[in-house]
Amino acid sequence: MSGGDLTPPVPDSESPPAVVLLSGGLDSATCLAIAIAEGFTVHAISFRYGQRHQYELERAVTLAETFGVASHRIVDIDLAQFGGSALTDPRLDVPKADSVDQIGHDIPITYVPARNTVFLSLALAFAEVIGGRDIFIGVNALDYSGYPDCRSDYIATYEAMANLATKAAVDGGRRLKIHTPLLTLTKAEIIARGLALGVDYSQTLSCYDPGPGGTACRRCDACLLRQKGFLLNGITE
Amino acid sequence: MSGGDLTPPVPDSESPPAVVLLSGGLDSATCLAIAIAEGFTVHAISFRYGQRHQYELERAVTLAETFGVASHRIVDIDLAQFGGSALTDPRLDVPKADSVDQIGHDIPITYVPARNTVFLSLALAFAEVIGGRDIFIGVNALDYSGYPDCRSDYIATYEAMANLATKAAVDGGRRLKIHTPLLTLTKAEIIARGLALGVDYSQTLSCYDPGPGGTACRRCDACLLRQKGFLLNGITE
Repeated sequence: MSGGDLTPPVPDSESPPAVVLLSGGLDSATCLAIAIAEGFTVHAISFRYGQRHQYELERAVTLAETFGVASHRIVDIDLAQFGGSALTDPRLDVPKADSVDQIGHDIPITYVPARNTVFLSLALAFAEVIGGRDIFIGVNALDYSGYPDCRSDYIATYEAMANLATKAAVDGGRRLKIHTPLLTLTKAEIIARGLALGVDYSQTLSCYDPGPGGTACRRCDACLLRQKGFLLNGITE
Repeated sequence: MSGGDLTPPVPDSESPPAVVLLSGGLDSATCLAIAIAEGFTVHAISFRYGQRHQYELERAVTLAETFGVASHRIVDIDLAQFGGSALTDPRLDVPKADSVDQIGHDIPITYVPARNTVFLSLALAFAEVIGGRDIFIGVNALDYSGYPDCRSDYIATYEAMANLATKAAVDGGRRLKIHTPLLTLTKAEIIARGLALGVDYSQTLSCYDPGPGGTACRRCDACLLRQKGFLLNGITE
């Protein structure tokens, strides 16, 4: 049987490889900084998934360079073809509000069907090939938009599934772990953590609906949550 | 909030929508026939994932037409970029043998990292958008190549995860179900079932490494398992 050259590299135990999902937003930038601070050799993965703007991806590239990741892969996967979300369908309006208190409690139209499940699955493939057992995702279930695939029980069950899915899991060894270091932090706590780790948040973009040049709209859920987080840290952007 | 036009259609209770993963092989063709026989309105999904040949996809198109599915979507997702499999890397040889008894017991080099997890995740996105709660996948854990993502505990845990992942799941209603009608059947039993449902197996292609025009090699695991199944039904192709 061929394939000797595809045996995953033996991880450096001092700095094992990890895959970090990097959108270019505030949360994933912080997550990237945490993965590095925890001693992982980071392989970043981003997605060109049919989002309504590309500014986010530009920021992901900048962040990956700034942090000097081992590799950065941008995967094309057209989720827009399925429709169903204002983040992938420019005919749908992104909801806007004047303050964070006006954000609705229902799952909003910006929800992209099964997005994190698709993204984690591709991260899982990537992790398996690089011989990694660690995936970082910046989901947050406190100051967030109410998406179902950002909650702790979802992540825990995803991890259980991943540990049955792959050759690496079946071959034994250390279990695959989905790291969610931001899960129970407020946006203000996330920003404080990132600032302590040297994240330059001007390199990030959170806005769901930016104007030309990637200017934040300041009125979508993501902008409002971000502003609140900075304000509580005594910072204005 | 916009998005009224994206409310999933109310399923016809007589014929609810289901997503069927359709590779163009023997198993998925049988699975498609079963989904239709069970009364579902079938939306087929296939993947151009960097497989070493496109003949399989041509067969999927033919099968979808033959069975008159409601829709058939071919999704591009480049798993070849991650490497690690003889099914996506033409530099690697597909293992060949002279009889089914020679098939190894280890997970073979034809395993594609996290493939079923990626495919099911995209099927999940598709199901959510069409208002479907049913996904059919032709995995089989008896006469199969030993892939970890074809086993019952993997599928059960995937289903649990999917029921936490989506807006549809959170909004309540009937649980999402991953149907695996072939899971515990032998290849011979699968073929017998398909023949009873009118599957024309000459429209299918199982070979991992076909020659020009999609001619089966007759010596890869998939060919050997297929031949054995036909033989036990008293049929030669």
